[in-house]
Amino acid sequence: MKDKDFLMIPGPTPVPESVLLAMAKHPMGHRSSEFSKVVRRVEEGLKWVFQTKYDVQIYTSSGTGAMESAISNLVNAGDKVLSLIIGNFGARWAKIAAMRGADVQKLEVPYGKAINPDELKKILDADTKKEIKVVTLTHNETSTGVTNPVKELAKIIREHGAISVVDGITSIGAIDCKMDEWGIDVLISGSQKGFMIPPGLAFLVANDRAWELHKQCKYPSFYFNWDDYKKNLDKDTTPWTPAVNLFIALDKALEMMREEGLENIFARHKNNAMLLRKGIKDMGLKLFVEDESIASYAITSVLPPEGINVPDIRKTLKEDYNIVVANGQNDLKDKIFRMGTLGFVTERDVLTALASLKATIDKLKK
Amino acid sequence: MKDKDFLMIPGPTPVPESVLLAMAKHPMGHRSSEFSKVVRRVEEGLKWVFQTKYDVQIYTSSGTGAMESAISNLVNAGDKVLSLIIGNFGARWAKIAAMRGADVQKLEVPYGKAINPDELKKILDADTKKEIKVVTLTHNETSTGVTNPVKELAKIIREHGAISVVDGITSIGAIDCKMDEWGIDVLISGSQKGFMIPPGLAFLVANDRAWELHKQCKYPSFYFNWDDYKKNLDKDTTPWTPAVNLFIALDKALEMMREEGLENIFARHKNNAMLLRKGIKDMGLKLFVEDESIASYAITSVLPPEGINVPDIRKTLKEDYNIVVANGQNDLKDKIFRMGTLGFVTERDVLTALASLKATIDKLKK
Repeated sequence: MKDKDFLMIPGPTPVPESVLLAMAKHPMGHRSSEFSKVVRRVEEGLKWVFQTKYDVQIYTSSGTGAMESAISNLVNAGDKVLSLIIGNFGARWAKIAAMRGADVQKLEVPYGKAINPDELKKILDADTKKEIKVVTLTHNETSTGVTNPVKELAKIIREHGAISVVDGITSIGAIDCKMDEWGIDVLISGSQKGFMIPPGLAFLVANDRAWELHKQCKYPSFYFNWDDYKKNLDKDTTPWTPAVNLFIALDKALEMMREEGLENIFARHKNNAMLLRKGIKDMGLKLFVEDESIASYAITSVLPPEGINVPDIRKTLKEDYNIVVANGQNDLKDKIFRMGTLGFVTERDVLTALASLKATIDKLKK
Repeated sequence: MKDKDFLMIPGPTPVPESVLLAMAKHPMGHRSSEFSKVVRRVEEGLKWVFQTKYDVQIYTSSGTGAMESAISNLVNAGDKVLSLIIGNFGARWAKIAAMRGADVQKLEVPYGKAINPDELKKILDADTKKEIKVVTLTHNETSTGVTNPVKELAKIIREHGAISVVDGITSIGAIDCKMDEWGIDVLISGSQKGFMIPPGLAFLVANDRAWELHKQCKYPSFYFNWDDYKKNLDKDTTPWTPAVNLFIALDKALEMMREEGLENIFARHKNNAMLLRKGIKDMGLKLFVEDESIASYAITSVLPPEGINVPDIRKTLKEDYNIVVANGQNDLKDKIFRMGTLGFVTERDVLTALASLKATIDKLKK
């Protein structure tokens, strides 16, 4: 049956109907006073979600665009960057920095684990000359379903003096992340995750310390240039033509988020993930991330049962039960499947997914 | 009255209802086989519109993103770039190249004029050491309403040996531009113009000669990296999460464009622009670009009549007649207003705009 698929991948995520309909209106001119009001309202809403007093730059791009923005506005060729890697998205930071000509040092742990704050501290303590300018890390690692202890890590980075650059693409609006209180210097996210709208917008917040380092940047990106964004944001507009309809969608989605309240949103994500984890264990399947203290509230990775393979599970779930889950990435391809509980997902959806997964496994066991 | 505005700005442009409704569907997973089919179909449609056999890279960004892609994949710091400037968008190429550290030479003509091919030839002939690697130019200059003789200019650039990089943001899908036949090396465009969909996607085509130069590029952009786009396009996908709903919208819009046919689309734009120009002259107003041989078929710039100012014309047109036209930019602000006939615009719309403009002027004259 067509048009019945329910996305439980880590993005794009399900989009509320009211958001889809808001998006389907004729575009408005992006230099109009009406649109400036939308920009202002969306900006205030994003600050609230990011828990920050700093400006939120809104890019028309995917989350990777915001990653490039961070690196290309902070890092010169030859600069030393430390990348904390717990999965593919942590590795992406290192790739972007390397492509920029940075001297990249990596702290890598086995996939399925989080960064140990003590290990980070050891590395930064050894950097007595303070050569490391930037430390990149991932809040919620989408490829494994692990959440890093960002609060602790950001504190250690602050004590060293480097700038912390955090990928919050699948955490912001889903998992608590107090940017200002925790002292995160640069935080980015994307629209098709906790924000419940389709892909196409990405967000970046930089605090005063990050702006200081930015001043030393020789060849920043033009499209993602912080100064241009700042100058235009002060006039409630964007330097380039934005994805107008996605702004309208975001305006509506933020209104829904305000109604629910941040604490309730975080609690819902936690409850849904915990319910999913319990149900998966109850049906005898194994979780890729067993340690509940680092398990993501946004993405749950599951190992297939003995004798049944991941492609068959994904195929049956999709074809017979209209539920789309993600495969593992790279080395984890066909070894795990990943279920998102990110954004517009309720307890009913989790129960539905569990029932469908159970039926899928039973069918494939025959 | 709300929801009645008709956009006659140079983008975003009016969007067909069938496209808006296609866009309002729940997003599909971007790594699904269904979406790969969309990517393949859209890719073939774009090649047809660009009149090229080369791959079309589809970015989630505004047109400026595609501009940065071109420069950042071709130009190293210190490289010599020649920028042909007939307006703000031509100047943008020079800014991007300068921000990249290029040594930028400019051929600038008064706004309202086009580049004279002989002048370009003189400059390139003088470059006997072939130091100029890249020549940037604008096909249709949105800020003035002038169309450059791209066919002639591209030929001269080819004879010199430099790479021609052409902004076709407001020309492709509206004004004939035979990329391969004319020997254009890099051609870019954006979604919210001739393609009749909302802003958020940008396109870039590079031919073999451009790919050769790209190989010498030391620090290409990561987000706009040509190699990653090529590798993924070969598998009918994109390197990063694309604006899925805009792809669906584009798929629908390209279907409509195929039904109309390229020649008919170009003829419609020409007829509409000529009808608009005639009507404007008939009511005693002056055109900013009097020379019909370089007047744009996509954007018409108009001078306000003696004693009436541009802001009043724009305000009355919008508030009393629900028609949105653009102001001039920078030095031309409040000196001209610009009317777009770009994309989903018919003869009826032009007649409506002329009647409304006449009524506006009459009202303001009282």
